[in-house]
Amino acid sequence: MDIKEDVQIEVAELGERILGRWAEVRRHTRGLIESEKLFKVEGEPLEKHRERVLKNLKTLVANGATQYGFLPELGGQMNPGGSLASFEELLFADPSLQIKFGVQWGLFGSAILYLGTEYHHKNFLPSAVNLDVPGAFAMTETGHGSDVASIGTTATFDPATNEFVINTPNRHSYKDYLGNAALHGQAAVVFAQLYTQGKNHGVHAFYVPIRKRGKLLPGVGSEDDGLKGGLNGIDNGRLYFNQVRVPRLNLLNRYADVAQDGTYSSVIESPGRRFFTQLGALVQGRVSLTGAVTNAQKLALDIAVRYSEERKQFAGPDGEERTLMDYGRHQRRLLPLIARTYAHIFAHQELLDAFHEVFAGINDTEETRADLETVAAAAKALSTWDALETIQQCREACGGQGFMAEHRLTGLRADLDIYVTFEGDNNVLLQLVAKRLLGDYAKAFKSPDFGTLAQYVAGQVGEAAFNRGGLRGLAQNIIDFGSTARSVGFIKDPEHQHQLLTDRVHTSIAKLANAMKAAGKDQLKQAELFNRHQNELILTAKAHGELIMWEAFTRALPTIEDPETRQVLTWLRDLFGFTLLEKDMAWYLLNGRINSARAEAITEYIDTRLLPRLRPHAIALVDAFLLTPGLVRTNLAKDEAARRAGIKKGQN
Amino acid sequence: MDIKEDVQIEVAELGERILGRWAEVRRHTRGLIESEKLFKVEGEPLEKHRERVLKNLKTLVANGATQYGFLPELGGQMNPGGSLASFEELLFADPSLQIKFGVQWGLFGSAILYLGTEYHHKNFLPSAVNLDVPGAFAMTETGHGSDVASIGTTATFDPATNEFVINTPNRHSYKDYLGNAALHGQAAVVFAQLYTQGKNHGVHAFYVPIRKRGKLLPGVGSEDDGLKGGLNGIDNGRLYFNQVRVPRLNLLNRYADVAQDGTYSSVIESPGRRFFTQLGALVQGRVSLTGAVTNAQKLALDIAVRYSEERKQFAGPDGEERTLMDYGRHQRRLLPLIARTYAHIFAHQELLDAFHEVFAGINDTEETRADLETVAAAAKALSTWDALETIQQCREACGGQGFMAEHRLTGLRADLDIYVTFEGDNNVLLQLVAKRLLGDYAKAFKSPDFGTLAQYVAGQVGEAAFNRGGLRGLAQNIIDFGSTARSVGFIKDPEHQHQLLTDRVHTSIAKLANAMKAAGKDQLKQAELFNRHQNELILTAKAHGELIMWEAFTRALPTIEDPETRQVLTWLRDLFGFTLLEKDMAWYLLNGRINSARAEAITEYIDTRLLPRLRPHAIALVDAFLLTPGLVRTNLAKDEAARRAGIKKGQN
Repeated sequence: MDIKEDVQIEVAELGERILGRWAEVRRHTRGLIESEKLFKVEGEPLEKHRERVLKNLKTLVANGATQYGFLPELGGQMNPGGSLASFEELLFADPSLQIKFGVQWGLFGSAILYLGTEYHHKNFLPSAVNLDVPGAFAMTETGHGSDVASIGTTATFDPATNEFVINTPNRHSYKDYLGNAALHGQAAVVFAQLYTQGKNHGVHAFYVPIRKRGKLLPGVGSEDDGLKGGLNGIDNGRLYFNQVRVPRLNLLNRYADVAQDGTYSSVIESPGRRFFTQLGALVQGRVSLTGAVTNAQKLALDIAVRYSEERKQFAGPDGEERTLMDYGRHQRRLLPLIARTYAHIFAHQELLDAFHEVFAGINDTEETRADLETVAAAAKALSTWDALETIQQCREACGGQGFMAEHRLTGLRADLDIYVTFEGDNNVLLQLVAKRLLGDYAKAFKSPDFGTLAQYVAGQVGEAAFNRGGLRGLAQNIIDFGSTARSVGFIKDPEHQHQLLTDRVHTSIAKLANAMKAAGKDQLKQAELFNRHQNELILTAKAHGELIMWEAFTRALPTIEDPETRQVLTWLRDLFGFTLLEKDMAWYLLNGRINSARAEAITEYIDTRLLPRLRPHAIALVDAFLLTPGLVRTNLAKDEAARRAGIKKGQN
Repeated sequence: MDIKEDVQIEVAELGERILGRWAEVRRHTRGLIESEKLFKVEGEPLEKHRERVLKNLKTLVANGATQYGFLPELGGQMNPGGSLASFEELLFADPSLQIKFGVQWGLFGSAILYLGTEYHHKNFLPSAVNLDVPGAFAMTETGHGSDVASIGTTATFDPATNEFVINTPNRHSYKDYLGNAALHGQAAVVFAQLYTQGKNHGVHAFYVPIRKRGKLLPGVGSEDDGLKGGLNGIDNGRLYFNQVRVPRLNLLNRYADVAQDGTYSSVIESPGRRFFTQLGALVQGRVSLTGAVTNAQKLALDIAVRYSEERKQFAGPDGEERTLMDYGRHQRRLLPLIARTYAHIFAHQELLDAFHEVFAGINDTEETRADLETVAAAAKALSTWDALETIQQCREACGGQGFMAEHRLTGLRADLDIYVTFEGDNNVLLQLVAKRLLGDYAKAFKSPDFGTLAQYVAGQVGEAAFNRGGLRGLAQNIIDFGSTARSVGFIKDPEHQHQLLTDRVHTSIAKLANAMKAAGKDQLKQAELFNRHQNELILTAKAHGELIMWEAFTRALPTIEDPETRQVLTWLRDLFGFTLLEKDMAWYLLNGRINSARAEAITEYIDTRLLPRLRPHAIALVDAFLLTPGLVRTNLAKDEAARRAGIKKGQN
């Protein structure tokens, strides 16, 4: 097959495709960032930064950038996807602004909306939506971190007064790291163990006023978390409660209620399912963080790629200094990051669609919710770690200039650091993914035969079309591994890439499931075996997340209309797929999935074909992020070009 | 062979071994940090931080912690190793303090000492040593970064006035990122292209006064680099010169001189060698940064390991919450980092010894200098990248607490970020290492036969004893790969670990050398081929650095007297070796050096033997860093323990 090498990207079309379904929302929020100058000021003292962010939030409210997700009577559109899209774009202005938005509307407001009922929507939602009442989402406790089920705060029903008594038993159970807790919050949605008639019914959420005119209410304590590694525009702090009474009606009672006589009732019988259902609202945090950090990767790449195209270092034998982007190592560092960022972009679009379908009630089933939660957990973990790596590589690619605060990369990294451990520690999230994979495997193998195995594989990959060959095809290909003549050709075939990536996940899960069988029904032994394989489980969950990204990227290709653009993006998808294979090459070799000739061909093909082919498109690929100077706000590349032009002209 | 599992570490002995040859110097500096409270204050505004650091430097001078490396008549001991040891310990107080120390004495003062002669030692050194004249080291330029040979600043000799005229031709040639340039510097050692009698003799260093009583001297310009991603206690800035005149004698003329009539002379004939000899003083920066970031790893691990030993999360089936350090994933994250940090510690001790021997004139030959520079380049690159990774893993292992500025990890990482690209960008340094390896290879292969190949290998590994088998032995082992029964036994043998790690380096270099042969004598083609293989070259140089670390760790083992401590450290060395093999497993598999059975055995052995064996010693291994509470300055682990004790007592 002839490959046309001399192709061009249609930046406008690709840019629109990347902007995606909620393009108008995104444009509106981007416009606000620029026109209202909602920027972070690097180095600003914490107190000023906190005030600036609160003020900027009010500007967003005034300009209609915050209400998308809420009821029409509150100016909203019940547009959950659009709401998250707006949130995600704020990253370009200031991650603190973005996260404080998330605290107010994604957590505090959404908890009222999704865990509350009409009473709460009427009484508490309007002031949350219009920011009259800044609120905290009081779930995490100092001593319990990601283990929400173990929180120590209690809410005990007192039928004598028809009130719940909120209480913090010890320092370990202080609510901690809560945005709006140290300063601005006037109310909080407090998660607590609900006790009534002497029985603990598990974790439930309560609407609790905490401040009036800036002063803490009786029984409520607060401490400031103080300076953090980043996100210092948010007043994170601790809250604790000494027998604080709230009316019975302040229980957010969509899923469970307590009657005036203290009788507990719930529409969900299983305490475990009830717990996870109430925590389900958290999924929107994970979905939108994924979009936000994907935007951070766009920003970092925009800065570093443009600089690398202007910056020259070290003269070659011809005496001419070489452009950074022409160095082999530099291409190896940046181009795969562009490819991975594109994979995140397309994967996030699918995730946001799925989120919208569930939360707008278009396709809200137990199964779609469970799938959404699994994919969001994997996506949040991978995208946040990848963002830190991308920003750091971009910072290093810019050398000393990258370390200057004005060029944004160091501040961006500092702000995003916490993303990998908040909203569910990444390792905890990946374990959830691994457990789901093990569960699916166990289901498929109740009566294992070759058909169920194939079915399991098809289920994992989500799109049966990819798997026409299935395991049988793979087996044939393994036989065919002896021939090395077509090594590259084999891997270039997207079906083969897909089979390899899929096989990586399902074979690992099968092995792990098998290893864990040894425990039988002994729960202690099960836990012990799970722990011994914890690292492998997490690595497998990561591989699963990468597979999802690869699939999304591949599904996006036919939607690109311009054939030349599609060609470049196909190379980019191949680069993503090849670097995944290269990264896990030891696994593929060990398991006989790739032979030596093909393994070497992969690295060779990346270095001698894909990188040189993609290199001329580096700028167009970041152009398609459509980031205006008003969003990027550094003149790093332009200044470099100007300085260089100055030399040529002999200027001082 | 029976392995005694129930062993204990003699912390005092191991601690002393880690403190090493300059233990007294290190103790003295550590004592000053604690008693004089030379600490960084997280979140302090830039201006205050800069003043604090200057004041702290003066305290160090007053307490005799800065003069070790200088002449006895200036209160020194001509103890280059001790000087660096003192510098390295300052990391515990404040990386800005450490780097400003480095600017003043490691760069500015050392340039006068090592590039100057008696005149400069008499006239400029005393005020540099006692800090009466804070000075800048004006080498780097905005437009030229790590490519020092291309700097644009000129120093043109004017015989009419017996002066050099220092001039900055354009914005690209501003000196940039210089500590002491924005504010405190009164003089600078300026690197410039030396012109005399119409000819450019390349880069030389000049002593140039820049400020008097805080005011810039005529013709000297300065700009403030402003806020950076870290190290904000240093007043980095730019300097530029508009026809600034300095006396002829201000040329630091140890290696080259200009006579009154303008005649140029040099003790080093080759311009290339002259350039690199003058830059040789820079090696001390690289050596000492390696020690400093190794201290940073100790600090981060001290914080994270202690916390992980106190923190419990998620109840097991027995209802008891589990200690973080007992999780398989947590062990996988932290224990290999302890192992690698120990490898850095021992490698750095050897490097510092070698540095001392050269710079104290004990063993100063062209060969020892060249070796020192190669090893320092590799060590600086690996240790600084590893430090960022270690600190980040430690931060994540501490969850939300790790993000609080008071627990030091985020500030430490922010400060150390620039270490990977300053004092020679890590990628540039690793290319130097790769070039040296290629050069050695080429030398050995002028008349290639099996003997020279073996000799080349022996030369690379530095210690012939390890290589009794040499290539022949390895060939046999490859044959023996068929037997899987003794898979682990094979790799556990340190000679085999060593052969594999060595072979990884020399086979890669041989392949690369071979690939580059295609260019013949064509320089353009050579450059092209070098660039195409740049990534592999850098990866090979990294592998070479890791080999050096592994060797140093192994050489340190017999020096540990207590057999139980030695046993634990042998496991730790094995963990380091095994994780290196695991990381590059694709290479070993592809090249037939390790077969599948052994590859799987390695991972299995790490997870089921080494980690469980080392886990009980985690605390003792960080205890041996001998970091007092006054150096660590966070109560993270203690507070966690207190909170937990509070729960048990039912306290609030």
